[in-house]
Amino acid sequence: MKQEKLPSSQAITREPLSGSRKVYVQGERVRVAMREIELGDTVSFVNGKEVRQPNAAVTVYDTSGPYTDPAVDIDLKKGLPRLREAWITEREDVDRLDAFTSAYANERLARTELDTLRFEHLTTPYRAKAGRNVTQLHYARQGIITPEMEYIAIRENQRIEAQKGALAHQHPGQSFGARTPNGPITAEFVRQEVAAGRAIIPANINHPEAEPMIIGRNFLVKINTNIGNSVVSSSIEEEVEKAVWSCRWGGDTLMDLSTGKNIHETREWIIRNCPVPVGTVPIYQALEKVNGKAEDLTWEIFRDTLIEQAEQGVDYFTIHAGVLLRYIPLTARRVTGIVSRGGSILAKWCLAHHKENFLYTHFEEICEIMKAYDVSFSLGDGLRPGSIADANDAAQFAELETLGELTKIAWKHDVQVMIEGPGHVPMHLIKENMDKQLAHCDEAPFYTLGPLTTDIAPGYDHITSGIGAAMIGWFGTAMLCYVTPKEHLGLPNKKDVKDGVITYKIAAHAADLAKGHPGAQYRDNALSKARFEFRWEDQFNLSLDPDTAREFHDETLPAEGAKLAHFCSMCGPHFCSMKITQDVRAYAEEHGLGDEEVLGHAMLEKSREFAEQGGELYL
Amino acid sequence: MKQEKLPSSQAITREPLSGSRKVYVQGERVRVAMREIELGDTVSFVNGKEVRQPNAAVTVYDTSGPYTDPAVDIDLKKGLPRLREAWITEREDVDRLDAFTSAYANERLARTELDTLRFEHLTTPYRAKAGRNVTQLHYARQGIITPEMEYIAIRENQRIEAQKGALAHQHPGQSFGARTPNGPITAEFVRQEVAAGRAIIPANINHPEAEPMIIGRNFLVKINTNIGNSVVSSSIEEEVEKAVWSCRWGGDTLMDLSTGKNIHETREWIIRNCPVPVGTVPIYQALEKVNGKAEDLTWEIFRDTLIEQAEQGVDYFTIHAGVLLRYIPLTARRVTGIVSRGGSILAKWCLAHHKENFLYTHFEEICEIMKAYDVSFSLGDGLRPGSIADANDAAQFAELETLGELTKIAWKHDVQVMIEGPGHVPMHLIKENMDKQLAHCDEAPFYTLGPLTTDIAPGYDHITSGIGAAMIGWFGTAMLCYVTPKEHLGLPNKKDVKDGVITYKIAAHAADLAKGHPGAQYRDNALSKARFEFRWEDQFNLSLDPDTAREFHDETLPAEGAKLAHFCSMCGPHFCSMKITQDVRAYAEEHGLGDEEVLGHAMLEKSREFAEQGGELYL
Repeated sequence: MKQEKLPSSQAITREPLSGSRKVYVQGERVRVAMREIELGDTVSFVNGKEVRQPNAAVTVYDTSGPYTDPAVDIDLKKGLPRLREAWITEREDVDRLDAFTSAYANERLARTELDTLRFEHLTTPYRAKAGRNVTQLHYARQGIITPEMEYIAIRENQRIEAQKGALAHQHPGQSFGARTPNGPITAEFVRQEVAAGRAIIPANINHPEAEPMIIGRNFLVKINTNIGNSVVSSSIEEEVEKAVWSCRWGGDTLMDLSTGKNIHETREWIIRNCPVPVGTVPIYQALEKVNGKAEDLTWEIFRDTLIEQAEQGVDYFTIHAGVLLRYIPLTARRVTGIVSRGGSILAKWCLAHHKENFLYTHFEEICEIMKAYDVSFSLGDGLRPGSIADANDAAQFAELETLGELTKIAWKHDVQVMIEGPGHVPMHLIKENMDKQLAHCDEAPFYTLGPLTTDIAPGYDHITSGIGAAMIGWFGTAMLCYVTPKEHLGLPNKKDVKDGVITYKIAAHAADLAKGHPGAQYRDNALSKARFEFRWEDQFNLSLDPDTAREFHDETLPAEGAKLAHFCSMCGPHFCSMKITQDVRAYAEEHGLGDEEVLGHAMLEKSREFAEQGGELYL
Repeated sequence: MKQEKLPSSQAITREPLSGSRKVYVQGERVRVAMREIELGDTVSFVNGKEVRQPNAAVTVYDTSGPYTDPAVDIDLKKGLPRLREAWITEREDVDRLDAFTSAYANERLARTELDTLRFEHLTTPYRAKAGRNVTQLHYARQGIITPEMEYIAIRENQRIEAQKGALAHQHPGQSFGARTPNGPITAEFVRQEVAAGRAIIPANINHPEAEPMIIGRNFLVKINTNIGNSVVSSSIEEEVEKAVWSCRWGGDTLMDLSTGKNIHETREWIIRNCPVPVGTVPIYQALEKVNGKAEDLTWEIFRDTLIEQAEQGVDYFTIHAGVLLRYIPLTARRVTGIVSRGGSILAKWCLAHHKENFLYTHFEEICEIMKAYDVSFSLGDGLRPGSIADANDAAQFAELETLGELTKIAWKHDVQVMIEGPGHVPMHLIKENMDKQLAHCDEAPFYTLGPLTTDIAPGYDHITSGIGAAMIGWFGTAMLCYVTPKEHLGLPNKKDVKDGVITYKIAAHAADLAKGHPGAQYRDNALSKARFEFRWEDQFNLSLDPDTAREFHDETLPAEGAKLAHFCSMCGPHFCSMKITQDVRAYAEEHGLGDEEVLGHAMLEKSREFAEQGGELYL
């Protein structure tokens, strides 16, 4: 067996983001982690005297977890603090088991040669007491506001708080049937949205390390990142650092798509150290258990895999239960057939046995397992289009209708559900996907991959898909699954992961703006004000990627002084459009005259100054 | 004076794009340059025997000019072949002047210290004979089909020709009032669109080197790239290579925004060696002539600058004639005031003199100059929003209405016009921009910068704006002005230029697909078919950036053999979803049975094969 390189705490990125510090907002029962970006003063000159006006710090939603809090001692071998454990046990509806339930988990435990790569501080899992249901959906429908819901309300709200005194008018957004809250988000609103099935809180009782978050179209649009090793590459250490790295830049959930060696042990390391919900595609591991022979898959093997992963703490499962035998022939004439890995595994099984998809026939049993741990469904779109030519075809929409049918069954069990969506879709066909999903799946949250709006740019599919993601997010998709530049070509490295995350944060935020989310535009306003006032450091620190913004600026004007200079690096010192408008406004304040009049005087005076001092004025 | 580094032919990128060769399509009077991408055979196995089916080469629209034709001898000091010169002189409506008309041009010529950096083979300019109008709009309205129009018809059509036998159904696009042609584009259709003012052909009689192209929403969406030196950086050699480089990757037009030293000589080098139309913002150079003092600008200086640049061959001028005195106060309360450089120059002039914008008051004289050389208007949006907060405000739309008024005046003179658009606009406010532009400007082509859909990602504004560009292109914008990753931060280097161009090619193509342009989807289909059939080299060569696609693939699977392997680099050899569907289809062809039945048999047989050979089957 290849010697695994184990994660070392030294290899993990820890420092806070540039200009930021971790802050904690105290609620009734919870303490919510946020990121605060400190800003410099606005400097202006009135009658030649320097006037400083402070700018309020900007707090932003923070997915980076304890890693960016220097006060927290991180030990990957111990795992993150178990934030939610007390909330879970206080509900008195779970038992701490003496051992793992899954045969496979115990088999792996028994193999001493794996001790070297096993997570050290393994704890036995929690499970619902007999006859109890521990899903957030169940609590919500009972009218119970959980600490998780309170945490989320505070977390989603920060932007609104911080927005106080934000500049400029808000444009009314268009949310296409989404109910964008007008006021602050309350814990009761969170409960109502979960109870209605319009939002989910992926929160496995065995992943207490995760900070609660919500996926629903009346909240901030979220993004998912994918990591995972494969036969061809990667180690446990790389995967854990990729997980921490993707959270650092804004990943709201993380899918572990490992298909290589030691999937079970790798997953343990990731979950114990992951501050966001973790999703998986259990059929991938089940396939490994039958040596890649899809036709050898059985319900029993799959069932054991679900329990194995549920007891490790996976927060949501992608289940391709909508790939029905009768739909498969609908893909035979496609340009790109079946491109979903899970979809093709199940298609292969169905056809090999001439039987209906066992995930479909055993769906209620799956629900029974998931509600005992509060694992959420991510109903997979195994027949999603793999090319523009196959978009919105009969196979895709047939499966979507079945996913709607399965949603109702899951809800009958109070199990939380989101629906996965395409794929490759040209812009003019995107909205039809959203409309059909809302109609067929009774407003269960939509979770889409892209969609990619053209097939002709391999190497840039974070961009081809970022376009579609922003649009479908605006139309109502609750979570966007990121695509990296390596899509279709290879496995993402750290740079690819960051490029994918930042691109999708852009898409998600653009969607929040378009939906008129009251907590969205204040950050744009704060950054634009900083840009306009030449507060370069503030502009960098308010951006999604301060490091890259600063680096790009320094390529043209490296000098430290340039970051204090009152001109843009584009036009140079001699002339700057922003400077002009700024001078005009400064003069206006000084004389307190009406706009038109003022501006005239201002420019006349300025032109005299120019005559006297020329370019010097700007240096 | 800093010693200029002159362009050397060695420094210019010349080799054809990967897998491509230059082809020429012969028309009645013209020979049209296109790029042909050669494809490999589709290999399948029937009864164990290898069957090869050839794939037709794919021809694509080619903006790279003679540089990518190894048969053409390139000498930057001589400039490109003067493709259009014969067509221009045959019309017998132009005179070849004995000398340059502009005082400034002659003054520069007289300065012997500039000889070292002057373009060597200067020729005296052409100008319309007294009383003649040499614009393509004038010819179109006379019912004349020019060689330029014929060239464009063939050029825009290639995709449709190549589309023969393309796979899969076309989705009806949504063109929001654009009249997407159903059949092949004819030269007469080109003439009609130009005559109606819905499209322009930027084609200065003094830039015969440029290959004719059209900007209009019933044609392929085009992209513009900006280059230009500034006080803070860059040399003539860099600028010429940047121009060639941007054309290589797909730039349809090029704007020279130089504001540094030797603007006149730099522009000469660029135009003589540029295979696409060149645009400028004459007010930038005029400002340099008055040492950056906007209030010292005069109509006479500006007029001489227009003639200077028109006689060098600039194909379109950005003219900020819509920045009226009464609109300026509307910007004083904005978050980011006036961010357009041209707009703020004119605002400053207007306020300094308390006079109306001299570009507005002298607009008819400007038309007289432009029709003597066929320079097109790009009516500038000097009051465009510089932040989300300022989008779609009173100042922006007031100016747009004035641009509509000016459009009618230009058309009275048979001068071609396009309209510049924003800027920073959230997604839900984008369509209003397009609708108002069509209404106020009588369908004159819209030419937009982005728009950027959020302000919070400096360093990634090619992406924040690529989202908006794709959408507004779908809504009907005819040309998209690219934004590079350096926007707001610094001056683009070659990598930034390429990133900007590829991102905007993606946006333009996504828009063509959404509009249902009959010449768009065949390339997606060809690439997806290659992807599905594991023709890696074809997938790379059909992509917008073959070099990057190949490089990314090789990072994961470097071996040459991997490019022939029948599996994706993501899943590895053991399991591949595409492979499964492909096997199914192969089996179907082999037995010629009905889908459902076939697929069943196929998988049963496959499972036997797997049992015998296991993973080997895929290796």
